[in-house]
Formats: sequence, structure tokens, C-alpha cells
Amino acid sequence: MNRYCVQRVQVTPRVSWIQSIVVVVAQENTDLMADIVRRFRHRKVRAVPGGSTRHRSIRNGILALGEEEEEGGQRPAAGRPPTVVLIHDAVRPFVDEDFLYKIATAAKEHGAAGAIRPLVSTVIATTPEGHLDHSLERGRYRASEMPQGFTYDVIYRAYQRCSQSDFDFGTECLHLALQYCGTKAKLVQGPPTLWKVTYKRDLAAAESIIKDALSRSACVVTGGSARGAALADALREAVRALGTELDAVPDLTGENASYPLKEWNFIQVSVDRGGPAEVGATLAALRGANRAPLHPLVVVWVLWSDSGEQLGGTAAETAAVVADLSSDAKLRNILLYGIQLHQSEDTERWQRSVSKVAEMASVLIRERSPALVGQLLQA
Amino acid sequence: MNRYCVQRVQVTPRVSWIQSIVVVVAQENTDLMADIVRRFRHRKVRAVPGGSTRHRSIRNGILALGEEEEEGGQRPAAGRPPTVVLIHDAVRPFVDEDFLYKIATAAKEHGAAGAIRPLVSTVIATTPEGHLDHSLERGRYRASEMPQGFTYDVIYRAYQRCSQSDFDFGTECLHLALQYCGTKAKLVQGPPTLWKVTYKRDLAAAESIIKDALSRSACVVTGGSARGAALADALREAVRALGTELDAVPDLTGENASYPLKEWNFIQVSVDRGGPAEVGATLAALRGANRAPLHPLVVVWVLWSDSGEQLGGTAAETAAVVADLSSDAKLRNILLYGIQLHQSEDTERWQRSVSKVAEMASVLIRERSPALVGQLLQA
Repeated sequence: MNRYCVQRVQVTPRVSWIQSIVVVVAQENTDLMADIVRRFRHRKVRAVPGGSTRHRSIRNGILALGEEEEEGGQRPAAGRPPTVVLIHDAVRPFVDEDFLYKIATAAKEHGAAGAIRPLVSTVIATTPEGHLDHSLERGRYRASEMPQGFTYDVIYRAYQRCSQSDFDFGTECLHLALQYCGTKAKLVQGPPTLWKVTYKRDLAAAESIIKDALSRSACVVTGGSARGAALADALREAVRALGTELDAVPDLTGENASYPLKEWNFIQVSVDRGGPAEVGATLAALRGANRAPLHPLVVVWVLWSDSGEQLGGTAAETAAVVADLSSDAKLRNILLYGIQLHQSEDTERWQRSVSKVAEMASVLIRERSPALVGQLLQA
Repeated sequence: MNRYCVQRVQVTPRVSWIQSIVVVVAQENTDLMADIVRRFRHRKVRAVPGGSTRHRSIRNGILALGEEEEEGGQRPAAGRPPTVVLIHDAVRPFVDEDFLYKIATAAKEHGAAGAIRPLVSTVIATTPEGHLDHSLERGRYRASEMPQGFTYDVIYRAYQRCSQSDFDFGTECLHLALQYCGTKAKLVQGPPTLWKVTYKRDLAAAESIIKDALSRSACVVTGGSARGAALADALREAVRALGTELDAVPDLTGENASYPLKEWNFIQVSVDRGGPAEVGATLAALRGANRAPLHPLVVVWVLWSDSGEQLGGTAAETAAVVADLSSDAKLRNILLYGIQLHQSEDTERWQRSVSKVAEMASVLIRERSPALVGQLLQA
């Protein structure tokens, strides 16, 4: 059986064929990293102190993979180096399993493999005085990205043989494999999401990708009534246009008890004077799932009433109930927002209200804004 | 006097030393572009149809700069080509005046000048079989970006002399100036905001930069009362921590009549039963300013009352007033949101409420979400 290892990586350990993950971090951050590993219950992951340059850090990781783990090691054959090593940068957090697998298999076949992307800009050589010397023909060149993969043997030997100058100034592992082992890496075109989060604007781009991923779907908890189910159908139509898919279930018990484990977003529908008990049960189910708190869960509570009053009180009292429940929920990393849906006999007006619920729920789910938690919006 | 011209550019014509702007667009989009020029009242701008490749499009722009304008031309010496031409890409919308000026002056001195950026990834050459051939030493190379500048003479001659193959496959104007005029362009390092908006994630990054720029400041309209001014002071402290600067004025008349022209965001404070008349005056002043509708204006209406009731009605009636006013405002591209601030004698609770107003106002101003327009939030 082949054994793959990844280092310098934030990839989730749910990729089953990865057997061990070494995270190389600056000495002063090893405690922090150990804490993250514990807190998010990462298995197969250990932290190793980095060196003064990129190549020194990667070498530390490579050496660690060949060493026995100190305690509680989970590798099936501790101490035996892996067949293939994948090297990745934490600043490229969106690598997916399929692409990792492509690089791993190409590395196994060719000794080395690396991700490439087309060049976005023309590359030019400069004179020492800062003038144009010549420009490269863009089609012949590629940007070298990560992940890269190597047979353990190739990358281990490359780091044994390379010079102090390589350690001081080099940045490209594929180059070391070529120069010191004669291994011509296979180059594999990767998706645009492999880009390096480098500038401030890249944080906004990364945030947007995460928000997209977290807001693709939601689960409507209807409370079991026919009216709740009908509203779920209407919402499903309306939010599909906004790019969100909805499932509808009466509650989160029995065969639906798995939703709190697989879904980030919930829309609780309460008809007439139903309400606090239903949303209370939903919040309890979400707390009970006890997920690692990587992202907050979003619960949008839709209060649908004929009368404009709800929960047996005035509008102000209803708003206070939403605010109170949300304070408790926030402590468990659950963001609760309320939307009051006013019943109308006028079909056009009713449809406008349902669209408004859909629009506002989509925005609340996508933006996950802590500042708006506990508000009761009107549709 | 020097005459500078820019083409392929979305730069605003407020850069005074730019005398004429030619926007090269696909034939089928010339009407759309003419409409944009009219709608946003751009002066000095005209549209020219592009060609089948980048170089053919740029050549069309260069030639247009040497031709007399047909009608209503505003160039001081129509028909005379400019001294220096700046070439820019619309996909790099964040270029600033200082950098344009650097490129223009370097182009005048050296015949050609171009923006460069350090390489983010190592550049590698590939074999025909898709393997690594060699990697370039990153320090010797740069990414060539835009804008670029040329004396009209250099760029005109370069396009007169270059080959069909250049027109078909070339992408780099600096290369043409070197090859056909022997002009070694001066290279000037530009800011990271020059990046090319290429992938979907870049739209999120661009949106974030625009939102940052639009939410740096806001104007609090206090209504002239001492309590309003005191609240403005408290809000100023609280939003500074969130990165927003606040000015406070009693109203938008007299010496404050210029605020609607220079500010994108307003916080209207209404004390006790004051309200609709004050916010009505603010909305009227904003409508009267009649700005080009490039971005929506944001008005956050803070209703501050001792009693919890306001505007002489129940909470539900107050919410309805905010919703009604916001529908009208939205037609004029003004996004109105309400925040009810509840008076409290408990100092700690009061400070929490003021912080909440600041947080929510900051989020509403930054996100400018149309879905939440007309809502009355509670602080």
C-alpha cells in the first residue's frame, strides 16, 4: 500500500489516503499550532519547528516524516518514511482532494510533480538600470504553484545534496529535484483557486470563496405543519434564483438528526403562535451536535403570523424574545436572526413578502454578520 | 505645454492634466459605452471600436488620438496628436493619479515607460511533453503590468512598422517599442492595486476595495440638539475603532450644503418625537445634489427615544414609517436603514447600546445591502 504525507498544509485530515500531516511553523508558534490541532480535533497532524528559509523549513518537515513520532503516534508503521510526500503552502487554502490526488499519482510515476498555472502578465527581464531588457514569450512559460509532490527518496536526496546557497536563496523544490536527482517533474495544470493569498485584497477574495461555500445550501425546519411545508416550497423557489439550495424537514430528530452535522444554515419556520419551543428544539439539536467551531452556524427564524402579533405579545415583545434567544445561542457560535413574515390576502403582496424573506435570509446566511445577530427584520 | 492622453481606460476625467481619453471597445458595445459616457457625464472621453486582437485595438486608439474629433470636441488643439500617450486596461480599475503621473513623466523622458510588479510565483519553462525544463531566477524578472506610457511618436512608429505576426500574437507594447524603435522602456514599480481583475475571486477583491473606499467616512446630521451632538461624539469614538471617520453637522444647509456632494454616507439622528421632518430634509438635500449615480448613498436613521415609542406611535408604526420613506429613497439610489436606540439610565447598558448603533451602522454602510433597506433595527 502507498503512503502519502503532506506538510506545510492546512488541508483537512478527512482526505483518507493521507496518512500523516506535518505542519512546519515558526518556533514561536508551535504552541499555538498544537492548540489549534487539539481544538479542531485534527488527527494525523503534528507541528515541527521551521528554519530560517523556505528550503530549511521544508527540509525539517521531510526529516520529521522519516522519524518516529514521540507519543500517541497514529501512523501504522511509525518510523518508516512515506512513499510520496506532498508539499503545500498554508497561503493556498483552497486545494481540493482531486487535485492532491493528481499530484500524488504523478509524483509516484515521475519522481516529482508540480502544479502550474498560465501566466496572467507578461514576464520581462530588466537591466541593472531598471530598463526593459527583453520580454519572455508568454506561451512558453508557466507560473509554478503548489502543491508539489515527490517520492520520499527524491526529495530526501535533493535536500541531502543541495548547497548552502540553495538553502539561503532558493525557493523552488522542483528545481532541486532536477539539479540534484536529475528528476524532470511532471507539470499539472491546477485550478485558479490554487492562488497564493498574498495581498490584503486576497483576504477579501478568500473570504468570499469561504462564504460561497458555506451558503450554497440550507435546511428549512418546518415544524411539521402543512403551512410550514408550503412556505418551505415557496422559499425553495425564491432562493434558488439566489444560488442557494434548500432541503425541508419537519424537525431535526430521527432520520433528520444528521442535518446538524452536515449543514451550516437553518431556516426555522414558526406558524402563528408557535415559536420559542420550536426554535428552542432546533437550537438544542445544533448545540447537541457539538461540532468543531470552525465557522458559526446560522439560524434564520421566520415568524409567520396572521395578526402581525406573535408569541402572544406585541411586536416589541416578540423582538425581545428573538434578542434574548440569540444572546444564548451566540455563546455556542450559533448566529440567530429573526424575520417577521406578515400574512396577506393580497396575492401580489404575499409573494413580495415571501421574496423578501428569501432575499434577507440569503443575505443573513451569506454575510453571517455578528452585528445583526438578534434583530427581528420585517417582510 | 504637454498633452497627455489615455486610452483603454476607465480612469476618471478628474485628472486635470489628462486632455483626452479614448476608450477602445468592441464594435457591438460602442452604443453602450456612449450611453455610459453620457449618463456619468464624462468629459474628454470618446469611444472607438476595437480590433480583433489587443494590438489592433490599441493601434485604433492611437490613430484616433491623431485624428480630429467629429463634433463637440473639447481638445484644445483638435487634430494635433498628444505628446505622451498612456495605455491602460479597464480590468485594472484602481490606478491612481500619482502613479499615472510617474509613468507619463518617465515616458516623456525615456520614450517609453511601464509598470512592473515583483513575481508572486516562480516562472518555469516547460518541455513539449509537459515536464519541467528549467526555472527562472525570480529576482531577475518582473511581471509587466499596466499602465504604460509612450511618446506619441514612439508608439505611432512602432505600430506602423510592426508585423502581422505581432498584430496576431503579440501582447506587449514595450516589446514593440524596443524592437521597432530601439526604445528601452523605463520600468517603474507600481502598487499592488494595479493587479488585473481576472478570475471570479478578483471581483470579490475589487468589491471589497470599493467598499473600503466608500465606507471610510460618514457625516452625522444631529438635528442641532445638544443631545444629538453628544450622541455624535459617542458614535465618533465607537466607529473610529471600526475604521470609519465621522463628521457631525446640525443639518445639510448653509456651509454644510457641500456634504451631499462629497460624502457617500449619512447618519441622521432624531431625538424623541422628532423624525420624519428631519430625515425628510436630509433626503431632500441628497436628492437635490443630483450626483451621478455611480454608487448608492447610504442613510442610517437613528431614532433615539426615552420611551421606547417614537414618532408618536407604536414600534410597529415606527417600523412602517421607516419602510415607507425607504421605498421612495431607493428610487433615487439612496439606501435608507433605521436603528431604534433605546434610552437607558443604566450607564453600562447605554454604552452597549451606543456601541451597537456604531457596529450596525458600520455594517450597513460597508455592505450597502439592498435586501435590508427599510428595516428598523434595535440597539
